Amino acid sequence: MTARTLQGFMELLPQEQIVFNHMKSVIAHTYELFGFAPLDTPVLELAEVLLSKSGGETEKQIYEFKKGDTNLAMRFDLTVPLAKYVALYNNDLTFPFKRYQIGKVYRGERPQKGRFREFYQCDIDIIDRDELNIVYDAEVLAVIYTIFSKLELPAFKIYINNRKLLGGYLEHLGIADKTVDVLRLVDKIKKIPEEAFLGELKDLGLSEDKNNQLLKFIKINGLNNEIINQLEDLAVENDNFVTGLNELKTVIEQAQNLGMPAQNIKIDLSITRGLDYYTGTVYETFFDEYPQFGSVCSGGRYDNLSSVFMDKKFPGVGISIGLTRLFDQLRANNLLPIKALTPNKALIITQGEEYVSEAIKLAGSLRKANIPVDVMYRQCKFKKKMEYANKIGVPYLVIIGEEEVNTGVYALKDMTTGEQTKLTTTELIEKLA
Amino acid sequence: MTARTLQGFMELLPQEQIVFNHMKSVIAHTYELFGFAPLDTPVLELAEVLLSKSGGETEKQIYEFKKGDTNLAMRFDLTVPLAKYVALYNNDLTFPFKRYQIGKVYRGERPQKGRFREFYQCDIDIIDRDELNIVYDAEVLAVIYTIFSKLELPAFKIYINNRKLLGGYLEHLGIADKTVDVLRLVDKIKKIPEEAFLGELKDLGLSEDKNNQLLKFIKINGLNNEIINQLEDLAVENDNFVTGLNELKTVIEQAQNLGMPAQNIKIDLSITRGLDYYTGTVYETFFDEYPQFGSVCSGGRYDNLSSVFMDKKFPGVGISIGLTRLFDQLRANNLLPIKALTPNKALIITQGEEYVSEAIKLAGSLRKANIPVDVMYRQCKFKKKMEYANKIGVPYLVIIGEEEVNTGVYALKDMTTGEQTKLTTTELIEKLA
Repeated sequence: MTARTLQGFMELLPQEQIVFNHMKSVIAHTYELFGFAPLDTPVLELAEVLLSKSGGETEKQIYEFKKGDTNLAMRFDLTVPLAKYVALYNNDLTFPFKRYQIGKVYRGERPQKGRFREFYQCDIDIIDRDELNIVYDAEVLAVIYTIFSKLELPAFKIYINNRKLLGGYLEHLGIADKTVDVLRLVDKIKKIPEEAFLGELKDLGLSEDKNNQLLKFIKINGLNNEIINQLEDLAVENDNFVTGLNELKTVIEQAQNLGMPAQNIKIDLSITRGLDYYTGTVYETFFDEYPQFGSVCSGGRYDNLSSVFMDKKFPGVGISIGLTRLFDQLRANNLLPIKALTPNKALIITQGEEYVSEAIKLAGSLRKANIPVDVMYRQCKFKKKMEYANKIGVPYLVIIGEEEVNTGVYALKDMTTGEQTKLTTTELIEKLA
Repeated sequence: MTARTLQGFMELLPQEQIVFNHMKSVIAHTYELFGFAPLDTPVLELAEVLLSKSGGETEKQIYEFKKGDTNLAMRFDLTVPLAKYVALYNNDLTFPFKRYQIGKVYRGERPQKGRFREFYQCDIDIIDRDELNIVYDAEVLAVIYTIFSKLELPAFKIYINNRKLLGGYLEHLGIADKTVDVLRLVDKIKKIPEEAFLGELKDLGLSEDKNNQLLKFIKINGLNNEIINQLEDLAVENDNFVTGLNELKTVIEQAQNLGMPAQNIKIDLSITRGLDYYTGTVYETFFDEYPQFGSVCSGGRYDNLSSVFMDKKFPGVGISIGLTRLFDQLRANNLLPIKALTPNKALIITQGEEYVSEAIKLAGSLRKANIPVDVMYRQCKFKKKMEYANKIGVPYLVIIGEEEVNTGVYALKDMTTGEQTKLTTTELIEKLA
């Protein structure tokens, strides 16, 4: 039998997995720092529940099968399971309900570079009954900022928009019936050449005047306050537009109150995020120097989470980080935030079998002080032991021989500098903690 | 569409999920403390890879399906994926290879109380090439002890045995051909009445003398050193037996060197753990007062991890905690280690809309100091705010009104004692950190 792993399923070596888990844990801890409670829903659900809302593309990609008489499917995102969860348990939940979920989702796409069939999504959503305070849209911004800062990744910006602005503007121009077409076109603006964009805009069959106004609107640019001034100067008398503009102003102001630096937020009126789910604030996140990664964290505000499952209205705002893809792109570009190659702070080696019990006692003491260590039990030449320590990438080596056992003072070798010091157990604990 | 979750799939409310995740995180951190590196393999594998070794029971329970031309299956444990992983990557791994994996596995059993179709396994294994030092069997004991101590669960004992002892003793009695029957019988000793056991022992067709010796052997009991003395007194001249006895002695001695209290280890010669996988040390873990939970952490030493996939020999030792089942049993008996009901240390409330920006700034400062907090944006009567704080179970309340904004000194209410103090931001951070 040949051992094989399926194509499109990420499987890492231990030193890579440590980095992956470090990233996952920074994300989880930041979510908790902002008061999000953990949630864990099944990977398998009834097919009819998962597919209750989805369109053709999703159905083709889903892993669906029958067990006994039941049609089962593996989840393809964490949003439908959340909608199901809120519908099932809303009487037991306290609102606003802030939850995070980090888990694997499945899409049976044709395998290609950078696409995975099993990948981690790291989601947060804040859900409330009937209405959700706009300040949460600012909290979400601050969450994204905090995560990407803590991960020590390349410079990034969060691009934000409010869909009510374009929607309201189209109403104001009297071309609300073209909203779907215009949204679809605007969504492509960064992906196609300007001429192609202008050509498609013409094809919409609007008057030249409207086209020009639309183009001018989408191209509004500058610093955030300059963009806001220009939007105000348009003096659009449309409720949607005015609400969108006020929301955008509030979100930016409150994000700064939350301690987020202004230079990491950028208003971008061309961001729409698909066609029908989002209704207000929308977010995308790009690395300044790596736009080819695409958005590494996206999301937005929606009016109703669970309309498929219930009549009651649950508005929300949320984002998702596609961790598997992000990790893969960072790795391919040597940008991984590598903190450690092993969970161990130190490796204890002995100068002979007779000191192993002493090494074990020391390991017990260090672990009791919450310091991860390992003992190398195998006896071989000192050079081999050093090679092993280098190979596993442990930062410190503790050496135990006759002198150490007699005096209770251990030799500690810093594997980076080569420096060697003599320390008692208490000093070792202080040094390695 | 009715929202439904599949039977046999655990789905928790947030306050339960926090406890579950606390337990999962104690397990993960302890595994890392002992130098185990994380591993994460796919939930989906080629069916032929997962089923390469399994027998009839597993095949019936497995979630297996076809996508395109490929037969896929969801993993039913973390051991077969590990065997595959070591076979695939052994040239890139450093041995001894210590890995932990915490993940969901799937078994399509008939749903019944206490049985889950999706459940977490939390595994460690130490694998080496050709030979694995016996001290690792002691490390595994210390890991189990550390986890169950840290979880603050009811009193427990780890029962240990070495399969070479019974195997060697049967060889010594000249009835090695009855090993499988005897193992099967011994495995049942705690589950059937003594008479039934004696009856079945007779049915094996051995002489009365052998039966008596066997019975006397299995019934050896007392303190660990008393058991070891009795085993030594048997003066069995059989290599297997002698090796097993020496291994058992070493494991107990080194576990104590690692700092593990003697009273948490108990030699039990009736523990065998199934019929053919384990070859040396075997472990089971029971709560003293809740034997009906069954073993909550089991495992052992095996000669060869990956024989299905390769010729090379990789001996190992490992254990598994079935976290979903353990959580379910603890919950049913009100034994859950509840630390917190919300990730938040404090909830910030305001005495009016006009103080919200101030509340947001304070939340930003506290989160920057790594203190999880939430702001209640909804304005309502103070009594309602208190009700909300009580409902989410947050330990502290920070109250911001006119006085607080003017003086920069905030009111902190301890929700347990009701005590109220006045603190600056710096003092708040110190108090809540």
